[in-house]
Amino acid sequence: MNILVIHGPNLNLLGMREPGIYGTSTLQQVNEMVRAKAGQVGAEVRIVQHSSEGDIIDVIHSSIGWADGIVINPAAYTHYSIAIRDAIAAARIATVEVHLSNIFAREEFRHKSVVSGVSLGVVSGLGAMGYVYALDYLAQDYLARRHQG
Amino acid sequence: MNILVIHGPNLNLLGMREPGIYGTSTLQQVNEMVRAKAGQVGAEVRIVQHSSEGDIIDVIHSSIGWADGIVINPAAYTHYSIAIRDAIAAARIATVEVHLSNIFAREEFRHKSVVSGVSLGVVSGLGAMGYVYALDYLAQDYLARRHQG
Amino acid sequence: MNILVIHGPNLNLLGMREPGIYGTSTLQQVNEMVRAKAGQVGAEVRIVQHSSEGDIIDVIHSSIGWADGIVINPAAYTHYSIAIRDAIAAARIATVEVHLSNIFAREEFRHKSVVSGVSLGVVSGLGAMGYVYALDYLAQDYLARRHQG
Amino acid sequence: MNILVIHGPNLNLLGMREPGIYGTSTLQQVNEMVRAKAGQVGAEVRIVQHSSEGDIIDVIHSSIGWADGIVINPAAYTHYSIAIRDAIAAARIATVEVHLSNIFAREEFRHKSVVSGVSLGVVSGLGAMGYVYALDYLAQDYLARRHQG
Amino acid sequence: MNILVIHGPNLNLLGMREPGIYGTSTLQQVNEMVRAKAGQVGAEVRIVQHSSEGDIIDVIHSSIGWADGIVINPAAYTHYSIAIRDAIAAARIATVEVHLSNIFAREEFRHKSVVSGVSLGVVSGLGAMGYVYALDYLAQDYLARRHQG
Amino acid sequence: MNILVIHGPNLNLLGMREPGIYGTSTLQQVNEMVRAKAGQVGAEVRIVQHSSEGDIIDVIHSSIGWADGIVINPAAYTHYSIAIRDAIAAARIATVEVHLSNIFAREEFRHKSVVSGVSLGVVSGLGAMGYVYALDYLAQDYLARRHQG
Amino acid sequence: MNILVIHGPNLNLLGMREPGIYGTSTLQQVNEMVRAKAGQVGAEVRIVQHSSEGDIIDVIHSSIGWADGIVINPAAYTHYSIAIRDAIAAARIATVEVHLSNIFAREEFRHKSVVSGVSLGVVSGLGAMGYVYALDYLAQDYLARRHQG
Amino acid sequence: MNILVIHGPNLNLLGMREPGIYGTSTLQQVNEMVRAKAGQVGAEVRIVQHSSEGDIIDVIHSSIGWADGIVINPAAYTHYSIAIRDAIAAARIATVEVHLSNIFAREEFRHKSVVSGVSLGVVSGLGAMGYVYALDYLAQDYLARRHQG
Amino acid sequence: MNILVIHGPNLNLLGMREPGIYGTSTLQQVNEMVRAKAGQVGAEVRIVQHSSEGDIIDVIHSSIGWADGIVINPAAYTHYSIAIRDAIAAARIATVEVHLSNIFAREEFRHKSVVSGVSLGVVSGLGAMGYVYALDYLAQDYLARRHQG
Amino acid sequence: MNILVIHGPNLNLLGMREPGIYGTSTLQQVNEMVRAKAGQVGAEVRIVQHSSEGDIIDVIHSSIGWADGIVINPAAYTHYSIAIRDAIAAARIATVEVHLSNIFAREEFRHKSVVSGVSLGVVSGLGAMGYVYALDYLAQDYLARRHQG
Amino acid sequence: MNILVIHGPNLNLLGMREPGIYGTSTLQQVNEMVRAKAGQVGAEVRIVQHSSEGDIIDVIHSSIGWADGIVINPAAYTHYSIAIRDAIAAARIATVEVHLSNIFAREEFRHKSVVSGVSLGVVSGLGAMGYVYALDYLAQDYLARRHQG
Amino acid sequence: MNILVIHGPNLNLLGMREPGIYGTSTLQQVNEMVRAKAGQVGAEVRIVQHSSEGDIIDVIHSSIGWADGIVINPAAYTHYSIAIRDAIAAARIATVEVHLSNIFAREEFRHKSVVSGVSLGVVSGLGAMGYVYALDYLAQDYLARRHQG
Repeated sequence: MNILVIHGPNLNLLGMREPGIYGTSTLQQVNEMVRAKAGQVGAEVRIVQHSSEGDIIDVIHSSIGWADGIVINPAAYTHYSIAIRDAIAAARIATVEVHLSNIFAREEFRHKSVVSGVSLGVVSGLGAMGYVYALDYLAQDYLARRHQG
Repeated sequence: MNILVIHGPNLNLLGMREPGIYGTSTLQQVNEMVRAKAGQVGAEVRIVQHSSEGDIIDVIHSSIGWADGIVINPAAYTHYSIAIRDAIAAARIATVEVHLSNIFAREEFRHKSVVSGVSLGVVSGLGAMGYVYALDYLAQDYLARRHQG
Repeated sequence: MNILVIHGPNLNLLGMREPGIYGTSTLQQVNEMVRAKAGQVGAEVRIVQHSSEGDIIDVIHSSIGWADGIVINPAAYTHYSIAIRDAIAAARIATVEVHLSNIFAREEFRHKSVVSGVSLGVVSGLGAMGYVYALDYLAQDYLARRHQG
Repeated sequence: MNILVIHGPNLNLLGMREPGIYGTSTLQQVNEMVRAKAGQVGAEVRIVQHSSEGDIIDVIHSSIGWADGIVINPAAYTHYSIAIRDAIAAARIATVEVHLSNIFAREEFRHKSVVSGVSLGVVSGLGAMGYVYALDYLAQDYLARRHQG
Repeated sequence: MNILVIHGPNLNLLGMREPGIYGTSTLQQVNEMVRAKAGQVGAEVRIVQHSSEGDIIDVIHSSIGWADGIVINPAAYTHYSIAIRDAIAAARIATVEVHLSNIFAREEFRHKSVVSGVSLGVVSGLGAMGYVYALDYLAQDYLARRHQG
Repeated sequence: MNILVIHGPNLNLLGMREPGIYGTSTLQQVNEMVRAKAGQVGAEVRIVQHSSEGDIIDVIHSSIGWADGIVINPAAYTHYSIAIRDAIAAARIATVEVHLSNIFAREEFRHKSVVSGVSLGVVSGLGAMGYVYALDYLAQDYLARRHQG
Repeated sequence: MNILVIHGPNLNLLGMREPGIYGTSTLQQVNEMVRAKAGQVGAEVRIVQHSSEGDIIDVIHSSIGWADGIVINPAAYTHYSIAIRDAIAAARIATVEVHLSNIFAREEFRHKSVVSGVSLGVVSGLGAMGYVYALDYLAQDYLARRHQG
Repeated sequence: MNILVIHGPNLNLLGMREPGIYGTSTLQQVNEMVRAKAGQVGAEVRIVQHSSEGDIIDVIHSSIGWADGIVINPAAYTHYSIAIRDAIAAARIATVEVHLSNIFAREEFRHKSVVSGVSLGVVSGLGAMGYVYALDYLAQDYLARRHQG
Repeated sequence: MNILVIHGPNLNLLGMREPGIYGTSTLQQVNEMVRAKAGQVGAEVRIVQHSSEGDIIDVIHSSIGWADGIVINPAAYTHYSIAIRDAIAAARIATVEVHLSNIFAREEFRHKSVVSGVSLGVVSGLGAMGYVYALDYLAQDYLARRHQG
Repeated sequence: MNILVIHGPNLNLLGMREPGIYGTSTLQQVNEMVRAKAGQVGAEVRIVQHSSEGDIIDVIHSSIGWADGIVINPAAYTHYSIAIRDAIAAARIATVEVHLSNIFAREEFRHKSVVSGVSLGVVSGLGAMGYVYALDYLAQDYLARRHQG
Repeated sequence: MNILVIHGPNLNLLGMREPGIYGTSTLQQVNEMVRAKAGQVGAEVRIVQHSSEGDIIDVIHSSIGWADGIVINPAAYTHYSIAIRDAIAAARIATVEVHLSNIFAREEFRHKSVVSGVSLGVVSGLGAMGYVYALDYLAQDYLARRHQG
Repeated sequence: MNILVIHGPNLNLLGMREPGIYGTSTLQQVNEMVRAKAGQVGAEVRIVQHSSEGDIIDVIHSSIGWADGIVINPAAYTHYSIAIRDAIAAARIATVEVHLSNIFAREEFRHKSVVSGVSLGVVSGLGAMGYVYALDYLAQDYLARRHQG
């Protein structure tokens, strides 16, 4: 089972950026947690971080045929990137949306996700564990679907 | 560590109710998953299901002093019960909000949660596993806070 | 054929409450009209009145397996109780929504029904006869469906 | 007692038009049900169908002095014809609004009726029986008012 | 100088229709006032009343080349007939909009005119005198423009 | 019969201010037209111009007991001065609202008048003649009411 | 004179719940202030606190015939319980709405009260004294009305 | 293959009406272009122009059984005629919507089409060529569908 | 303790102005009630009434250093005067907002107060007693704060 | 004559991506149709596809001086890329907007184009033929303008 | 070159008023900075501060013929004074709008300026330097225009 | 002191692009003005221009540790790029937002900036001088903060 993990814009600054909101772990530490979980559930992961909407779209496209699931934290693009939404819909890969902070408890303009409409689910506000749970769920979902097939 | 798990209105019909949206597991099966996880993380759980907003408020009040965390699926009340929101805020117990289906991919009127503003986080669309992840997170969060204290 | 008739909050005051809007018949008189019609169409009726949203949800749940149709006047809950909407959707029982006064000719906030989306139909403003017509329609509909089956 | 029954635009296609929404009865069959009911309650009925807003206004005007009640299915005009609303208000004839399908369970733009504000009541989603119930109600209402007078 | 006076839908009922709002003068009396004023200012008038939006559009079209001004009371069409707006804009004839009642002091939905954007001006709430003032203004405006030309 | 004529803020610049919108007549010329009309209908007029909302309120108050009618062009205050609205309502003097330009054909924010709800009527876009028509109407209305009384 | 005092959901936690917003007095202390005032003005009071919307409706109904006034703090229900609004309207008992904190200076969603439309008045932000003033006003109002009668 | 071409209100004035927006070709010249294209693709065309909403609905109805496609420029009705929308939906004939000017670059109120929801497609702003392209597309679509059948 | 009492525009007409809404007491009678209460609680009061927003701002400014509390009925300015809001915020004097009528039960545009966000509290609909309660509260609040200090 | 053809994000997946909405032709097939048409009308075409908003802006800039027309399918960027809108406006090259599916018959958020305001026209829902018609129109428009010049 | 500098309501309290938002400089210190800059660029300045909207309008009017530019900080009036907007438009004097704090980073209701539509530009959030920059820009703009003329 | 100056999309076309709105200076000329000012205040500047949102985010990130201030003209991204907003907030570098034209006097959709909420201030409509003033302010602010530190 192969999982693509996408970190959106500004997440490279994790740990340093507004720690009151995003916590003090760095992106590297988050990725280690993700890789540890991947090891546990027997998944291969590819982890990327991009500032550009176009690059996120390209990485989704290039994962078609390889990825069995996507864990994406679209960061600010969550709220307006219909292009990323369309990329996920086009790729037809099971996708879980993750947010480190609870976007529904922040500014009004962060309450709406244009990506959620094409996601299996959303985990918001559970910090780096959100990625771990998303990965775990995709693994279980993958096995369940395989079992049925 | 003690955790209160609250199922909101209509969740007693789980498995039978609109399985295309909510899946085929019964509430009893969900609760068994929750109890299994609780065993793993060494938490004591109290699980309730109520149709009435007032009963949900009362059970939150009565858990003050006992509960170290709350996992709540407010179901339809998610979208309008400011009274449940106020009960959570008043209780000052760490709370994670869970939705079986991805409410953000359903009807427009289900996209807004009046409860999220006082929740630590939200898990939406990951089925019964949402409860398990919420419980796991609260356990980790509890240990981390204890460790700091 | 079994029909559950549900009167929402404040309808117990019928006849006494704002007669200019709701008329001078008491709830007992309305119920007699309903029972008379039930006798005509050969239906057994169960009639309840509740102030609490939770009680209305419970009575819908408990009618599953018995009721072939529901006639509901959700009164004030019409405008915000997504929980009652979900109960009707979950029960999968043919439901007709009734309003004594014409809610569409009253205050703006009474023009929207969150329940209508899961009702077969709505009768508004035809006084107590609304219940009678709803019951009549459910009986005809029941026979027609039986005939097809 | 005289009743004017008005079918709005596109209702001439009934039975053929989107049967999943409007059913398979033709307008002629609906009119026979209406006439049968009229016979029962001792009413004389005049039934018309018009595509044009102006024609519907004219027929309402010309019924002044003759009609004791109007049963109107304004079809698409329901949602924007303030001119038909004004015609009903000006005619001061007791009017019941009928919709074959449950307009409140369809597209958002069909949830609003500009005509309801001047109707005695609304019957929506009960198919052709809606006309029958409307006629029955007007007959009862007429007798009650006469009795008082 | 030639003036076209257009009365919109339901104005044929004037005097009889909701006299509390529209006054007790009949349309004939209004027209006499208009004709008297026309005599004073040396204008020839053509007065029409139509229920149908299409007929109003046609009469505007047919007045091109004849009319030097239009006095129009679009009645209910005021609030939604973009087609009449377009007809006035296309005809390029100086037009004054008249309302017998003060539409800005009535229901919220009567506060908006889609026709005003292409009118020289609006007279609202001055009863039948509104037509007289509109006619007077068009006559003065016509003379002023002629004088300049 | 006594009439108070109120010009709102910036109208002192008339003739000089944006002539494309407001015309080239000065306020003095407008006032001469008003006085001429007053002479014709036998009315005494008091004409004021104020920049301040408070001064307009005060002049309305001080006219109580003297004025039989008010002609007011509230200019920019039209769109937000609820205080002037309340002053007119409190004074209970028949009031006609006048606008030189057609406010309904200008910027969106000029389409709404908070004063219209307490005016007898509105004349908009007929230039200085708007004042003359308003005065004429108040005179006729005054005579009609006197005649009835 | 008899007064019913109703405390809405979560008010049982008073003193402990978010003291920065609601103050440090307990509900018992508030009730003592209310009883002291009742003694002063010669009123008998019945004081209740309920979490459930249905229970609040029931207590309003049961006070009909006994209560001469109601002091209600609907707490969170203020913002959406049309059912409580309808109960007050139906009971036709003079009602004053009280809020401990100034709801108009808090979150946007707390600025709207659906209950105010049927209240005599509102006291917001004056802490426990709000109940005392409400009681005092009802007593004066009762005496004044009695005196007139 | 038979195609019905419908021109909505005011299009009879084409060439004369606001040439800055609609161009200088007359409706006759547009129709010649349409007929030339029809000749090329072997289609028979019926071309009508109507001011009245009812007439447009009637012509759509009467084309059922004859027309294989409809090219419609609903003009002003585009923005509010749900009745024309319903007529197209009921007729179940492949329909392409055409606008001479680019309605999406004009006034805000022209940006919304209530007809587009039941059209195959929309051509806006390409002048008279819009009709030609629409006709061409319907011909190709017809052949493709025939080929499949 | 010194208290500034501010009456906004049109309140000078009290007793005469719309008595159905505002009651029959004159402003002088209200002021006597205020002075009597001030005597009771040992406060010195300064009472002003202004039509002009600027004058209200000036009087707030000039009370800085003297006033320990402000009782303000901003009347119509309640709904739009951000300038008065800013004056209160700048003065940093404890302020209670008073409305004679219940503004929340009147026209929609009176439901919003731009001043409430900087007030301690609001008393609405309790007539002249609203001033008395506001004064009483400020006195108690002043003593409590002094006691703490 | 030179034409720049721009395909926006996700269009590289054409044929594979949601064929129910976008059809089964690949982007290569679409481009062949475009090139064939270009050959017919004697135009040179440059065809690009980009995922990134910035790349689309750059290609528009770099075509200044070369391109006589632009055919653009901005895909998801249609709905929010004011930057692409500004690039088109800045380039001052005649531009036609194309959408494969009928965006006006899809989700609400796809009904609005921020690009249309600076386009000559829009072709929506006519599949790959949309590009062909756009190209054809630009060629005709180019010749017509040249002829005038 | 002559420049009018206008300070709106509450700015007289500068330095004392909410220093966290507006800084600790007094209005006198701001004015000294303005005068120093005026000296540098060879401009004569007239500086006023008014609480009243009417006074601000009057000072704008009286500066016609003298002022070559206006620097205005409308303070709270920024958000609703259409009357000041109209005064600036009428005066036709180049105007720059200044705000000490960054109004776009404060409460939602401060984000909108009704004055900006008639200003050359806006400087917001740069403290007292905003006035200096505005003055500098007007001076440069004046020289540039003079040079062209 | 180091300052990063960022020009957003389409600004490379400056001078050529819509000169009526943006003026005739080229970007190079603007940059020379910026560099001249930088020389005056002793600042080192780095000036970039990017079409891509991602590139702007990257340059902000890479300036962390070097830049003491940012002058940004986000151009079209002003209105929707929450990602750039988040980059500025994360970088915690004092930032001033500049717009060449007065965005508040242009199309409605340009009135809102999603970036302003994290900017120190905004200069809009003062042409290239906006950059100069922003730079000057950042230099003064830097010195003031250094002095305090």
